[in-house]
Amino acid sequence: MESSQLQHTNRQYEEELRGLRAALLKMGGLVERQIAEAIEALVARDSEHARQVIGRDVEVNRMDIEGDECCIRLLARYQPAASDLRFITTGLKITTDLERIGDNAVNICERAIELNEEPQLKPYIDIPRMAQLARSMVRDSLDAFMRYDTDLAEQVIARDDEVDQLNRLIYGELLTYMAQNPSTVPRATKILFVSKYLERIADHATNIAEMVVFLVKGRTIKHLDRGHGR
Amino acid sequence: MESSQLQHTNRQYEEELRGLRAALLKMGGLVERQIAEAIEALVARDSEHARQVIGRDVEVNRMDIEGDECCIRLLARYQPAASDLRFITTGLKITTDLERIGDNAVNICERAIELNEEPQLKPYIDIPRMAQLARSMVRDSLDAFMRYDTDLAEQVIARDDEVDQLNRLIYGELLTYMAQNPSTVPRATKILFVSKYLERIADHATNIAEMVVFLVKGRTIKHLDRGHGR
Repeated sequence: MESSQLQHTNRQYEEELRGLRAALLKMGGLVERQIAEAIEALVARDSEHARQVIGRDVEVNRMDIEGDECCIRLLARYQPAASDLRFITTGLKITTDLERIGDNAVNICERAIELNEEPQLKPYIDIPRMAQLARSMVRDSLDAFMRYDTDLAEQVIARDDEVDQLNRLIYGELLTYMAQNPSTVPRATKILFVSKYLERIADHATNIAEMVVFLVKGRTIKHLDRGHGR
Repeated sequence: MESSQLQHTNRQYEEELRGLRAALLKMGGLVERQIAEAIEALVARDSEHARQVIGRDVEVNRMDIEGDECCIRLLARYQPAASDLRFITTGLKITTDLERIGDNAVNICERAIELNEEPQLKPYIDIPRMAQLARSMVRDSLDAFMRYDTDLAEQVIARDDEVDQLNRLIYGELLTYMAQNPSTVPRATKILFVSKYLERIADHATNIAEMVVFLVKGRTIKHLDRGHGR
Protein backbone atom coordinates (compact mmCIF):
# COMPACT_ATOMS: atom_id res chain seq x y z
CA MET A 1 0.00 0.00 0.00
CA GLU A 2 2.69 2.44 0.99
CA SER A 3 4.79 1.58 -1.99
CA SER A 4 1.88 2.07 -4.38
CA GLN A 5 1.13 5.39 -2.71
CA LEU A 6 4.73 6.37 -3.20
CA GLN A 7 4.56 5.41 -6.85
CA HIS A 8 1.39 7.40 -7.21
CA THR A 9 3.14 10.37 -5.64
CA ASN A 10 6.10 9.90 -7.93
CA ARG A 11 3.86 9.87 -10.96
CA GLN A 12 2.14 13.02 -9.75
CA TYR A 13 5.48 14.62 -9.07
CA GLU A 14 6.82 13.77 -12.53
CA GLU A 15 3.65 15.13 -14.03
CA GLU A 16 3.88 18.42 -12.14
CA LEU A 17 7.54 18.72 -13.05
CA ARG A 18 6.61 18.23 -16.72
CA GLY A 19 3.93 20.85 -16.19
CA LEU A 20 6.57 23.30 -14.98
CA ARG A 21 8.75 22.64 -18.01
CA ALA A 22 5.78 23.14 -20.34
CA ALA A 23 4.79 26.36 -18.55
CA LEU A 24 8.29 27.81 -18.85
CA LEU A 25 8.54 26.87 -22.53
CA LYS A 26 5.15 28.43 -23.19
CA MET A 27 6.16 31.61 -21.40
CA GLY A 28 9.41 31.65 -23.39
CA GLY A 29 7.47 31.25 -26.63
CA LEU A 30 5.20 34.13 -25.72
CA VAL A 31 7.99 36.57 -24.87
CA GLU A 32 9.81 35.58 -28.05
CA ARG A 33 6.67 36.45 -29.98
CA GLN A 34 6.38 39.73 -28.04
CA ILE A 35 9.91 40.71 -29.13
CA ALA A 36 9.20 39.77 -32.76
CA GLU A 37 5.91 41.66 -32.90
CA ALA A 38 7.33 44.71 -31.11
CA ILE A 39 9.95 45.01 -33.84
CA GLU A 40 7.37 44.34 -36.58
CA ALA A 41 5.24 47.16 -35.16
CA LEU A 42 8.28 49.45 -34.97
CA VAL A 43 9.40 48.77 -38.54
CA ALA A 44 5.89 48.96 -40.01
CA ARG A 45 5.15 52.11 -37.96
CA ASP A 46 1.98 50.36 -36.80
CA SER A 47 0.86 51.91 -33.48
CA GLU A 48 -2.21 49.71 -33.31
CA HIS A 49 -0.04 46.60 -33.47
CA ALA A 50 2.27 48.08 -30.82
CA ARG A 51 -0.72 48.60 -28.53
CA GLN A 52 -1.77 44.97 -29.04
CA VAL A 53 1.66 43.79 -27.93
CA ILE A 54 1.48 46.05 -24.87
CA GLY A 55 -1.98 44.66 -24.05
CA ARG A 56 -0.67 41.11 -24.24
CA ASP A 57 1.86 41.79 -21.46
CA VAL A 58 -0.75 40.87 -18.84
CA GLU A 59 -0.49 37.29 -20.15
CA VAL A 60 3.27 37.31 -19.64
CA ASN A 61 2.75 38.58 -16.10
CA ARG A 62 0.13 35.94 -15.39
CA MET A 63 2.51 33.24 -16.62
CA ASP A 64 5.26 34.63 -14.39
CA ILE A 65 3.06 34.29 -11.31
CA GLU A 66 1.78 30.86 -12.34
CA GLY A 67 5.30 29.62 -13.04
CA ASP A 68 6.43 30.72 -9.59
CA GLU A 69 3.41 29.13 -7.94
CA CYS A 70 4.15 25.90 -9.79
CA CYS A 71 7.76 25.95 -8.48
CA ILE A 72 6.69 26.69 -4.91
CA ARG A 73 4.03 23.97 -5.03
CA LEU A 74 6.60 21.43 -6.22
CA LEU A 75 8.96 22.44 -3.40
CA ALA A 76 6.20 22.33 -0.77
CA ARG A 77 4.59 19.03 -1.81
CA TYR A 78 7.51 16.87 -2.83
CA GLN A 79 10.59 18.34 -1.14
CA PRO A 80 12.73 17.42 -4.14
CA ALA A 81 16.42 16.86 -3.52
CA ALA A 82 19.67 17.48 -5.33
CA SER A 83 19.37 18.09 -9.06
CA ASP A 84 15.58 18.52 -9.15
CA LEU A 85 15.82 21.07 -6.36
CA ARG A 86 18.34 23.02 -8.39
CA PHE A 87 16.25 22.74 -11.54
CA ILE A 88 13.20 24.14 -9.75
CA THR A 89 15.04 26.95 -7.98
CA THR A 90 16.62 27.92 -11.30
CA GLY A 91 13.13 27.88 -12.81
CA LEU A 92 12.08 30.37 -10.12
CA LYS A 93 14.79 32.73 -11.27
CA ILE A 94 14.17 32.22 -14.97
CA THR A 95 10.54 33.36 -14.74
CA THR A 96 11.84 36.74 -13.56
CA ASP A 97 14.16 37.07 -16.55
CA LEU A 98 11.40 36.08 -18.96
CA GLU A 99 8.98 38.55 -17.40
CA ARG A 100 11.50 41.37 -17.73
CA ILE A 101 12.19 40.44 -21.33
CA GLY A 102 8.45 40.92 -21.82
CA ASP A 103 8.72 44.35 -20.17
CA ASN A 104 11.46 45.31 -22.60
CA ALA A 105 9.24 44.30 -25.54
CA VAL A 106 6.59 46.63 -24.07
CA ASN A 107 9.18 49.42 -23.79
CA ILE A 108 10.04 48.95 -27.48
CA CYS A 109 6.35 49.33 -28.35
CA GLU A 110 6.06 52.49 -26.24
CA ARG A 111 8.97 54.07 -28.10
CA ALA A 112 7.53 52.83 -31.44
CA ILE A 113 4.26 54.65 -30.74
CA GLU A 114 6.15 57.85 -29.83
CA LEU A 115 8.30 57.55 -32.95
CA ASN A 116 5.16 57.41 -35.09
CA GLU A 117 4.34 60.97 -34.08
CA GLU A 118 7.22 62.15 -36.28
CA PRO A 119 8.43 61.24 -39.78
CA GLN A 120 10.71 58.22 -40.02
CA LEU A 121 14.35 59.06 -39.33
CA LYS A 122 15.82 56.25 -41.40
CA PRO A 123 15.00 52.69 -42.45
CA TYR A 124 15.75 50.10 -39.77
CA ILE A 125 18.51 47.68 -40.73
CA ASP A 126 20.57 46.81 -37.67
CA ILE A 127 17.71 46.93 -35.15
CA PRO A 128 15.85 43.98 -36.78
CA ARG A 129 19.13 42.04 -36.97
CA MET A 130 19.76 42.72 -33.31
CA ALA A 131 16.20 41.66 -32.46
CA GLN A 132 16.65 38.44 -34.44
CA LEU A 133 19.82 37.66 -32.50
CA ALA A 134 18.26 38.51 -29.14
CA ARG A 135 15.25 36.30 -29.90
CA SER A 136 17.44 33.36 -30.86
CA MET A 137 19.31 33.83 -27.58
CA VAL A 138 16.07 33.74 -25.58
CA ARG A 139 14.93 30.56 -27.33
CA ASP A 140 18.29 28.80 -27.10
CA SER A 141 18.90 29.72 -23.47
CA LEU A 142 15.58 28.15 -22.54
CA ASP A 143 16.24 25.07 -24.71
CA ALA A 144 19.64 24.77 -23.03
CA PHE A 145 17.88 24.85 -19.66
CA MET A 146 15.40 22.12 -20.63
CA ARG A 147 18.11 19.85 -22.04
CA TYR A 148 20.90 20.68 -19.57
CA ASP A 149 22.85 21.56 -22.71
CA THR A 150 25.91 23.54 -21.64
CA ASP A 151 27.30 23.73 -25.19
CA LEU A 152 24.20 25.55 -26.36
CA ALA A 153 24.32 27.74 -23.25
CA GLU A 154 27.93 28.69 -23.99
CA GLN A 155 26.91 29.60 -27.55
CA VAL A 156 24.25 31.94 -26.17
CA ILE A 157 26.82 33.58 -23.90
CA ALA A 158 29.19 34.04 -26.86
CA ARG A 159 26.43 35.57 -29.00
CA ASP A 160 25.97 38.33 -26.42
CA ASP A 161 29.17 39.94 -27.74
CA GLU A 162 27.61 40.22 -31.21
CA VAL A 163 24.62 42.00 -29.71
CA ASP A 164 26.91 44.38 -27.83
CA GLN A 165 28.77 45.10 -31.05
CA LEU A 166 25.55 45.85 -32.90
CA ASN A 167 24.48 48.08 -30.02
CA ARG A 168 27.74 50.03 -30.26
CA LEU A 169 27.38 50.28 -34.05
CA ILE A 170 23.86 51.69 -33.70
CA TYR A 171 25.01 54.05 -30.96
CA GLY A 172 27.82 55.42 -33.15
CA GLU A 173 25.53 55.88 -36.12
CA LEU A 174 22.88 57.69 -34.09
CA LEU A 175 25.50 59.97 -32.50
CA THR A 176 26.50 61.02 -36.02
CA TYR A 177 22.91 61.73 -36.98
CA MET A 178 22.36 63.86 -33.89
CA ALA A 179 25.62 65.76 -34.26
CA GLN A 180 24.94 66.54 -37.94
CA ASN A 181 21.31 67.44 -37.53
CA PRO A 182 20.12 68.42 -34.06
CA SER A 183 16.48 68.17 -35.13
CA THR A 184 16.91 64.39 -35.17
CA VAL A 185 17.81 64.27 -31.45
CA PRO A 186 14.40 63.29 -30.03
CA ARG A 187 13.91 60.52 -32.59
CA ALA A 188 17.50 59.30 -32.42
CA THR A 189 17.46 59.00 -28.62
CA LYS A 190 14.27 56.93 -28.84
CA ILE A 191 15.90 54.56 -31.33
CA LEU A 192 18.92 54.48 -29.02
CA PHE A 193 16.63 53.30 -26.24
CA VAL A 194 15.17 50.59 -28.49
CA SER A 195 18.70 49.36 -29.12
CA LYS A 196 19.33 49.29 -25.39
CA TYR A 197 16.11 47.37 -24.71
CA LEU A 198 17.27 44.72 -27.17
CA GLU A 199 20.69 44.63 -25.55
CA ARG A 200 18.98 44.15 -22.19
CA ILE A 201 16.88 41.29 -23.60
CA ALA A 202 20.10 39.64 -24.74
CA ASP A 203 21.54 40.19 -21.24
CA HIS A 204 18.57 38.39 -19.69
CA ALA A 205 19.05 35.47 -22.11
CA THR A 206 22.75 35.44 -21.19
CA ASN A 207 21.83 35.37 -17.51
CA ILE A 208 19.62 32.34 -18.15
CA ALA A 209 22.42 30.64 -20.10
CA GLU A 210 24.88 31.31 -17.26
CA MET A 211 22.45 29.78 -14.79
CA VAL A 212 22.25 26.67 -16.99
CA VAL A 213 26.04 26.25 -16.98
CA PHE A 214 26.05 26.81 -13.22
CA LEU A 215 23.23 24.29 -12.80
CA VAL A 216 24.99 21.60 -14.82
CA LYS A 217 28.63 22.15 -14.00
CA GLY A 218 27.96 23.42 -10.50
CA ARG A 219 30.68 25.96 -10.86
CA THR A 220 30.69 29.66 -11.04
CA ILE A 221 31.00 30.82 -14.59
CA LYS A 222 28.25 33.19 -13.52
CA HIS A 223 29.74 36.65 -13.21
CA LEU A 224 33.28 35.65 -14.14
CA ASP A 225 35.11 37.37 -16.96
CA ARG A 226 31.95 39.04 -18.07
CA GLY A 227 31.01 42.62 -18.66
CA HIS A 228 27.86 44.33 -17.50
CA GLY A 229 26.35 45.42 -20.77
CA ARG A 230 26.38 49.07 -21.59
CA MET B 1 15.83 11.53 22.12
CA GLU B 2 13.91 12.13 18.92
CA SER B 3 12.33 15.26 20.32
CA SER B 4 15.71 16.64 21.39
CA GLN B 5 17.10 15.90 17.93
CA LEU B 6 14.18 17.74 16.43
CA GLN B 7 14.81 20.70 18.70
CA HIS B 8 18.44 20.65 17.76
CA THR B 9 17.44 20.69 14.11
CA ASN B 10 15.02 23.51 14.76
CA ARG B 11 17.75 25.54 16.42
CA GLN B 12 20.07 24.90 13.49
CA TYR B 13 17.31 25.79 11.08
CA GLU B 14 16.53 29.06 12.86
CA GLU B 15 20.21 29.87 12.86
CA GLU B 16 20.60 29.23 9.14
CA LEU B 17 17.49 31.27 8.44
CA ARG B 18 18.98 34.13 10.45
CA GLY B 19 22.16 33.62 8.44
CA LEU B 20 20.21 34.09 5.23
CA ARG B 21 18.63 37.29 6.52
CA ALA B 22 22.02 38.63 7.54
CA ALA B 23 23.55 37.69 4.17
CA LEU B 24 20.81 39.48 2.23
CA LEU B 25 21.09 42.59 4.42
CA LYS B 26 24.84 42.62 3.98
CA MET B 27 24.49 42.28 0.22
CA GLY B 28 21.92 45.09 0.24
CA GLY B 29 24.29 47.29 2.22
CA LEU B 30 27.09 46.65 -0.23
CA VAL B 31 25.04 47.47 -3.34
CA GLU B 32 23.74 50.61 -1.63
CA ARG B 33 27.33 51.64 -1.04
CA GLN B 34 28.18 50.81 -4.67
CA ILE B 35 25.44 53.16 -5.90
CA ALA B 36 26.58 55.95 -3.54
CA GLU B 37 30.23 55.63 -4.49
CA ALA B 38 29.48 55.37 -8.21
CA ILE B 39 27.72 58.73 -8.02
CA GLU B 40 30.49 60.21 -5.85
CA ALA B 41 33.02 59.12 -8.48
CA LEU B 42 30.86 60.59 -11.25
CA VAL B 43 30.37 63.94 -9.54
CA ALA B 44 34.01 64.26 -8.42
CA ARG B 45 35.22 63.12 -11.88
CA ASP B 46 37.38 60.57 -10.06
CA SER B 47 38.18 57.70 -12.47
CA GLU B 48 40.33 55.94 -9.89
CA HIS B 49 37.39 55.80 -7.48
CA ALA B 50 35.14 54.58 -10.30
CA ARG B 51 37.57 51.75 -11.00
CA GLN B 52 37.56 50.77 -7.32
CA VAL B 53 33.78 50.48 -7.39
CA ILE B 54 33.98 48.35 -10.55
CA GLY B 55 36.59 46.14 -8.84
CA ARG B 56 34.33 45.62 -5.85
CA ASP B 57 31.60 44.10 -8.04
CA VAL B 58 33.20 40.64 -7.64
CA GLU B 59 32.14 40.84 -3.97
CA VAL B 60 28.55 41.54 -4.97
CA ASN B 61 28.67 38.56 -7.33
CA ARG B 62 30.13 36.31 -4.66
CA MET B 63 27.36 37.34 -2.27
CA ASP B 64 24.76 36.60 -4.94
CA ILE B 65 26.05 33.05 -5.33
CA GLU B 66 26.40 32.53 -1.57
CA GLY B 67 22.92 33.87 -0.94
CA ASP B 68 21.47 31.44 -3.47
CA GLU B 69 23.43 28.55 -2.01
CA CYS B 70 22.13 29.46 1.43
CA CYS B 71 18.53 29.39 0.15
CA ILE B 72 18.99 26.07 -1.64
CA ARG B 73 20.66 24.53 1.44
CA LEU B 74 17.74 25.62 3.63
CA LEU B 75 15.28 24.11 1.16
CA ALA B 76 17.24 20.86 0.86
CA ARG B 77 17.94 20.30 4.56
CA TYR B 78 14.80 21.47 6.27
CA GLN B 79 12.03 21.35 3.66
CA PRO B 80 10.39 24.41 5.17
CA ALA B 81 6.67 24.80 4.63
CA ALA B 82 4.23 27.64 4.09
CA SER B 83 5.47 31.08 5.02
CA ASP B 84 9.14 30.14 5.45
CA LEU B 85 9.12 28.48 2.06
CA ARG B 86 7.79 31.67 0.52
CA PHE B 87 10.33 33.77 2.40
CA ILE B 88 13.20 31.65 1.11
CA THR B 89 11.98 31.47 -2.49
CA THR B 90 11.51 35.25 -2.44
CA GLY B 91 15.07 35.52 -1.11
CA LEU B 92 16.24 33.54 -4.14
CA LYS B 93 14.67 36.13 -6.40
CA ILE B 94 15.88 39.12 -4.42
CA THR B 95 19.55 38.14 -4.78
CA THR B 96 19.13 38.49 -8.55
CA ASP B 97 17.70 42.01 -8.21
CA LEU B 98 20.49 43.04 -5.84
CA GLU B 99 23.15 41.63 -8.13
CA ARG B 100 21.74 43.56 -11.11
CA ILE B 101 21.58 46.74 -9.05
CA GLY B 102 25.30 46.17 -8.52
CA ASP B 103 25.76 45.81 -12.29
CA ASN B 104 24.01 49.14 -12.82
CA ALA B 105 26.39 50.80 -10.35
CA VAL B 106 29.25 49.37 -12.43
CA ASN B 107 27.64 50.76 -15.59
CA ILE B 108 27.49 54.22 -13.98
CA CYS B 109 31.21 53.97 -13.22
CA GLU B 110 32.00 52.95 -16.80
CA ARG B 111 30.17 55.99 -18.16
CA ALA B 112 31.83 58.19 -15.48
CA ILE B 113 35.27 57.10 -16.69
CA GLU B 114 34.31 57.84 -20.30
CA LEU B 115 32.88 61.23 -19.33
CA ASN B 116 36.20 62.14 -17.73
CA GLU B 117 37.84 62.06 -21.17
CA GLU B 118 36.01 65.28 -22.00
CA PRO B 119 35.35 68.55 -20.11
CA GLN B 120 32.36 68.55 -17.77
CA LEU B 121 29.09 69.31 -19.58
CA LYS B 122 27.30 70.77 -16.56
CA PRO B 123 27.20 70.38 -12.78
CA TYR B 124 25.14 67.43 -11.60
CA ILE B 125 22.04 68.38 -9.64
CA ASP B 126 19.22 65.98 -10.45
CA ILE B 127 21.38 62.88 -10.89
CA PRO B 128 22.55 62.88 -7.22
CA ARG B 129 18.95 63.46 -6.09
CA MET B 130 17.80 60.58 -8.21
CA ALA B 131 20.60 58.38 -6.82
CA GLN B 132 19.61 59.33 -3.27
CA LEU B 133 16.03 58.31 -3.97
CA ALA B 134 17.03 55.07 -5.65
CA ARG B 135 19.31 54.15 -2.74
CA SER B 136 16.58 54.79 -0.18
CA MET B 137 14.29 52.56 -2.23
CA VAL B 138 16.84 49.72 -2.22
CA ARG B 139 17.30 50.00 1.55
CA ASP B 140 13.60 50.29 2.34
CA SER B 141 12.55 47.47 0.02
CA LEU B 142 14.95 45.14 1.80
CA ASP B 143 13.85 46.36 5.25
CA ALA B 144 10.26 45.81 4.20
CA PHE B 145 11.19 42.25 3.22
CA MET B 146 12.86 41.54 6.56
CA ARG B 147 9.96 42.96 8.58
CA TYR B 148 7.11 41.84 6.32
CA ASP B 149 6.23 45.53 6.29
CA THR B 150 3.77 46.11 3.46
CA ASP B 151 3.30 49.80 4.32
CA LEU B 152 6.98 50.44 3.76
CA ALA B 153 6.88 48.33 0.59
CA GLU B 154 3.97 50.40 -0.76
CA GLN B 155 5.94 53.57 -0.02
CA VAL B 156 8.82 52.23 -2.09
CA ILE B 157 6.46 51.45 -4.96
CA ALA B 158 5.03 54.99 -4.77
CA ARG B 159 8.51 56.54 -4.76
CA ASP B 160 9.22 54.92 -8.13
CA ASP B 161 7.03 57.56 -9.77
CA GLU B 162 9.31 60.30 -8.38
CA VAL B 163 12.30 58.57 -9.93
CA ASP B 164 10.51 58.31 -13.26
CA GLN B 165 9.67 62.01 -13.09
CA LEU B 166 13.30 62.92 -12.42
CA ASN B 167 14.35 60.67 -15.28
CA ARG B 168 11.97 62.47 -17.65
CA LEU B 169 13.20 65.86 -16.38
CA ILE B 170 16.82 64.89 -17.03
CA TYR B 171 15.89 63.48 -20.44
CA GLY B 172 14.18 66.74 -21.44
CA GLU B 173 17.07 68.86 -20.26
CA LEU B 174 19.64 66.76 -22.09
CA LEU B 175 17.57 66.83 -25.30
CA THR B 176 17.70 70.63 -25.15
CA TYR B 177 21.47 70.60 -24.67
CA MET B 178 21.97 68.30 -27.64
CA ALA B 179 19.61 70.23 -29.91
CA GLN B 180 21.26 73.56 -29.06
CA ASN B 181 24.80 72.34 -29.27
CA PRO B 182 25.49 69.14 -31.22
CA SER B 183 29.02 68.91 -29.81
CA THR B 184 27.47 67.93 -26.48
CA VAL B 185 25.81 64.82 -27.97
CA PRO B 186 28.37 62.20 -26.89
CA ARG B 187 28.51 63.52 -23.32
CA ALA B 188 24.78 64.10 -23.05
CA THR B 189 23.91 60.57 -24.21
CA LYS B 190 26.28 59.16 -21.56
CA ILE B 191 24.56 61.18 -18.83
CA LEU B 192 21.26 60.02 -20.27
CA PHE B 193 22.44 56.43 -19.76
CA VAL B 194 23.43 57.20 -16.15
CA SER B 195 19.92 58.48 -15.55
CA LYS B 196 18.53 55.28 -17.03
CA TYR B 197 20.78 53.10 -14.87
CA LEU B 198 19.42 54.86 -11.79
CA GLU B 199 15.89 54.42 -13.04
CA ARG B 200 16.60 50.72 -13.51
CA ILE B 201 17.98 50.49 -9.96
CA ALA B 202 14.72 52.00 -8.71
CA ASP B 203 12.82 49.46 -10.83
CA HIS B 204 14.69 46.60 -9.17
CA ALA B 205 13.86 48.04 -5.72
CA THR B 206 10.24 48.34 -6.82
CA ASN B 207 10.28 44.72 -7.94
CA ILE B 208 11.55 43.70 -4.49
CA ALA B 209 8.84 45.80 -2.81
CA GLU B 210 6.16 44.20 -5.02
CA MET B 211 7.43 40.75 -4.04
CA VAL B 212 7.13 41.74 -0.36
CA VAL B 213 3.49 42.77 -0.78
CA PHE B 214 2.85 39.56 -2.70
CA LEU B 215 4.60 37.54 0.02
CA VAL B 216 2.58 39.08 2.84
CA LYS B 217 -0.80 39.63 1.27
CA GLY B 218 -0.55 36.64 -1.05
CA ARG B 219 -2.24 38.55 -3.78
CA THR B 220 -1.11 39.88 -7.04
CA ILE B 221 -0.28 43.51 -6.82
CA LYS B 222 2.75 42.44 -8.80
CA HIS B 223 2.32 43.66 -12.35
CA LEU B 224 -1.08 45.24 -11.88
CA ASP B 225 -1.67 48.86 -12.78
CA ARG B 226 2.03 49.43 -13.17
CA GLY B 227 4.12 50.76 -15.98
CA HIS B 228 7.35 49.29 -17.27
CA GLY B 229 9.79 52.13 -16.73
CA ARG B 230 11.12 53.91 -19.73
